[in-house]
Amino acid sequence: MKKQKLTILKIGGKLLEEDAKLEQALKAFTSLEGLKILVHGGGKAASALCRQLDIAPLVVDGRRITDAATLKVVTMQYAGWANKTIVAKLQALGCQSIGLTGADMNVIRAHKRELQPIDYGFVGDIDCINTEVIRQLLEMGVTPVFCAITHDKNGQLLNTNADTIAAKLASALAPFFETTLKLCFEKSGVLKNPADEGSVIERIRHSEFKAHQTNGLISDGMIPKLDNAFHALQQGVSEVFICGIEGIDNSKPGTQLLQ
Amino acid sequence: MKKQKLTILKIGGKLLEEDAKLEQALKAFTSLEGLKILVHGGGKAASALCRQLDIAPLVVDGRRITDAATLKVVTMQYAGWANKTIVAKLQALGCQSIGLTGADMNVIRAHKRELQPIDYGFVGDIDCINTEVIRQLLEMGVTPVFCAITHDKNGQLLNTNADTIAAKLASALAPFFETTLKLCFEKSGVLKNPADEGSVIERIRHSEFKAHQTNGLISDGMIPKLDNAFHALQQGVSEVFICGIEGIDNSKPGTQLLQ
Repeated sequence: MKKQKLTILKIGGKLLEEDAKLEQALKAFTSLEGLKILVHGGGKAASALCRQLDIAPLVVDGRRITDAATLKVVTMQYAGWANKTIVAKLQALGCQSIGLTGADMNVIRAHKRELQPIDYGFVGDIDCINTEVIRQLLEMGVTPVFCAITHDKNGQLLNTNADTIAAKLASALAPFFETTLKLCFEKSGVLKNPADEGSVIERIRHSEFKAHQTNGLISDGMIPKLDNAFHALQQGVSEVFICGIEGIDNSKPGTQLLQ
Repeated sequence: MKKQKLTILKIGGKLLEEDAKLEQALKAFTSLEGLKILVHGGGKAASALCRQLDIAPLVVDGRRITDAATLKVVTMQYAGWANKTIVAKLQALGCQSIGLTGADMNVIRAHKRELQPIDYGFVGDIDCINTEVIRQLLEMGVTPVFCAITHDKNGQLLNTNADTIAAKLASALAPFFETTLKLCFEKSGVLKNPADEGSVIERIRHSEFKAHQTNGLISDGMIPKLDNAFHALQQGVSEVFICGIEGIDNSKPGTQLLQ
């Protein structure tokens, strides 16, 4: 039997900070044919809220150090404000959606990251995705909307990178669906020249990814993003794109990753 | 066919503020036989967060006035921190639960309250409960955990009293289940003497409720709580209790309301 098509879209960065951009992204997402899942970040707003509450935000290698106070802030911001705002907007667009953390229906179980080489605090690395409940929701016609919070099944909430959640969801669901993963952010794709939005690299093979790291074309936060994305491809995800907002409906597909 | 038993438990007040009490309440809830739904408040913590963020909390007749900044705070606190902390704790206890606002799966649609006699801001009065999706979740073996946030299906989140949500859920589900509603708070029930926890009134009939308002035995926040609860009884809910934490497992049932 032919597998059903599933798109997993991650939105992050400045797309979440500007109402008009978020609306545009959610409209494009709602229009997508086939089954779909949304994953969102929200780190910039969480950092702002930390500052308002006099909690100094600390980020190392693109990963937030999450002490108990920061965990509360990110849970409030990601699972509370960002997630429910997005779900309410999707409902207004006619998209029957549900907001989820990994704790909800035990859908993503993680463990607190090892303390070496850096103690990241309450940061979770994913152990297990409950594909059965996700498939049940999709069969009910419900679109899951994941924020970047997981749990350890022992009562502890954990902060988990949204790109990683999107890539792991795609990998876990690839056996059941013809899965497309799109990591969508404020740039139009992977750029040859960061200052030139027209310099999108159309395709990157895994071998080129390594070379681009060496020659400095791909650096900083793009490295873990592409690591996650290439890993999903190796796990059987059909198509992986790094794109901007116009990549959601494929009008500007961005950068496709190839094995 | 005999209807399945469903318990709808609302927890609020100081039960949510003390970890040990919350754990005790969630353990008792998890042990309940039959289908169950949890509803929680969280107003005290939201007021504290408002103060931290220099937003003056304002409450009239037990209802919070919800401006845009306050709506963000209550959504963060109720749907984010309180709801997900409770779900993670329930998962640790082996209760397969899911946290919900009214926006999730469009499960509770409300409208912004009329501006007269008081403009309550972004406060929602419930129009419609989607019993079908709640029944689907219950059939999947999932326990819904509702926080006090609804939406208007036009993209607007709304703050809605948790007692009201619990009572409306009970009324809406009464045709499908043999439904018990328990409104659980820091006191052991409706007290004859507010200073004496031993003075719980065992049963109150609706006719007595009116008399108790006149003679001042029932006043302030207890009036809307009992109004909600009596309304549920009139809508076909089998049993309604106002109780303390020991009412959850019926060891101290609290005050039963009777038509």
